[in-house]
Amino acid sequence: MEQFRERILNADPRAIARAATLIENRRATPLLRELFPHSGKALVIGITGAPGAGKSTFANQLAALLRKEDKRVAIIAVDPTSPYSGGAILGDRIRMLQHHADPGVFIRSMATRGCLGGLAPAAADMTVLFDAAGCEVVIVETVGVGQDEVEIAKLADVTLVVLTPNNGDDVQVLKAGLMEIADVFVLNKSDLMGSDKLERELKGSFTLAHRPDGWIPLVVRTVAAEGQGIDDALAAARQYNATGLNKQRRSEVWAGRLREMLRERLLERYDPTVFEQAAHAVIDHQTDPYTVIEELLGHK
Amino acid sequence: MEQFRERILNADPRAIARAATLIENRRATPLLRELFPHSGKALVIGITGAPGAGKSTFANQLAALLRKEDKRVAIIAVDPTSPYSGGAILGDRIRMLQHHADPGVFIRSMATRGCLGGLAPAAADMTVLFDAAGCEVVIVETVGVGQDEVEIAKLADVTLVVLTPNNGDDVQVLKAGLMEIADVFVLNKSDLMGSDKLERELKGSFTLAHRPDGWIPLVVRTVAAEGQGIDDALAAARQYNATGLNKQRRSEVWAGRLREMLRERLLERYDPTVFEQAAHAVIDHQTDPYTVIEELLGHK
Repeated sequence: MEQFRERILNADPRAIARAATLIENRRATPLLRELFPHSGKALVIGITGAPGAGKSTFANQLAALLRKEDKRVAIIAVDPTSPYSGGAILGDRIRMLQHHADPGVFIRSMATRGCLGGLAPAAADMTVLFDAAGCEVVIVETVGVGQDEVEIAKLADVTLVVLTPNNGDDVQVLKAGLMEIADVFVLNKSDLMGSDKLERELKGSFTLAHRPDGWIPLVVRTVAAEGQGIDDALAAARQYNATGLNKQRRSEVWAGRLREMLRERLLERYDPTVFEQAAHAVIDHQTDPYTVIEELLGHK
Repeated sequence: MEQFRERILNADPRAIARAATLIENRRATPLLRELFPHSGKALVIGITGAPGAGKSTFANQLAALLRKEDKRVAIIAVDPTSPYSGGAILGDRIRMLQHHADPGVFIRSMATRGCLGGLAPAAADMTVLFDAAGCEVVIVETVGVGQDEVEIAKLADVTLVVLTPNNGDDVQVLKAGLMEIADVFVLNKSDLMGSDKLERELKGSFTLAHRPDGWIPLVVRTVAAEGQGIDDALAAARQYNATGLNKQRRSEVWAGRLREMLRERLLERYDPTVFEQAAHAVIDHQTDPYTVIEELLGHK
């Protein structure tokens, strides 16, 4: 274990890949306990938004910019179809071939089905791993706008929501509750028609709905495919992080996570088949659910 | 307690209203244990779909039709803005005035914020209440297509998804995973343009995605505002229920619910402030989350 830990702390790609697999299989607790004291230094940037908005292209460009600053970067792509390249691709889920690997960029994809116990806890543990391995920035890219994505976005120090004009995105954003998690809006493909309108609508919406922390999301315009505006987006992310407004959120997220971890562990004390058997007894009205629970708690 | 139970079993509206409030405040366990043996007879019909599809109008008409069959009906509106009328409106959350109250229809609204411990468990307990009170049909109407709604829909014996043409609904349905929970599609406002196209698209999608239970959802056309097609919708709901295909789902739902109830109860043994304190300790790196959990489990 000690040797394994040291290899991770020294950013050995093969050790990190093995650790990432352990995390997905939920067998990494002893390792994570070793790594945690070495974490807490990375800036965690969440990137989310509707499919087709150019999130992966943007994240790739962001990583490239950070490399110019000589920062070590990890990209966790919570979407196995994300086309990443140019870094040490860890694990076999990424389909792209690895060209000109840069040892300062780690890339790992995660799929919902590949993660026992949910995506958000696994993504959180994955950031601890890369953080401990010395990555100064961890980028977590999620696909879509479901509950999982929102949970993952909350883990980040700063969340960037990528939008494009003429994609019906204005409505989508408001609907999906992305409004609440976006610290920075990245208006990508901003050379397209409709960008001005989208920017206006976005900024208009800020005046309607105020965040509890008082932050007014920043809006930056990018053309990620051409590398335009990436520096503005990074500056905006750092500007939000520097306010320290995310401290309260981070505290709430950790309290919720600990609660969830404890719930899961408490339940592990029970044989899983108990619930199926009890369900049948309840459906057949042999007993009632409230009595079942009291029995399972050992009160009867 | 005995007297309270008897009043509910005799369908006393005031006793039912009081019980509903107890359920929302999560103080109804002793009562529910008394009521459960008297439940299990009602047909639970879930109604969901995008806002504006006419769910409430449809549910009102469905209740009216059931009244003609002399059935006692409860409507649980998981949306305090639903405009219901014509029944015994229980609780003060409904804004409409009560006219010509029909003692054979109970109406109760629930709001997310009003329910401790989540909407789905409260809605499940609410169906037990009305079921025990002698309602032969319990209609559960949910707004929107979030995770809560899907959980609630799973509780039903049969789930009806209400759609309208020209509302972008075709895409929404597929996106939101409603496809998996719809036993019957109610194509409402079917006198509007685009109904044929929507019906074609829906039926086309059934050939692409098969349900695990092999059921091909029924599609019925209604104009709820004019009472057209309601009988077809009810017949379709009963047709699905008669197959018994929902037995497996009901068993899974109960197993999951029991698991969830137990998790909550196990967690109640801990002081809630423990998690906030532990979160701060973790953020400050005084400890690590994995050690915190072991300590809370009493392993250390």
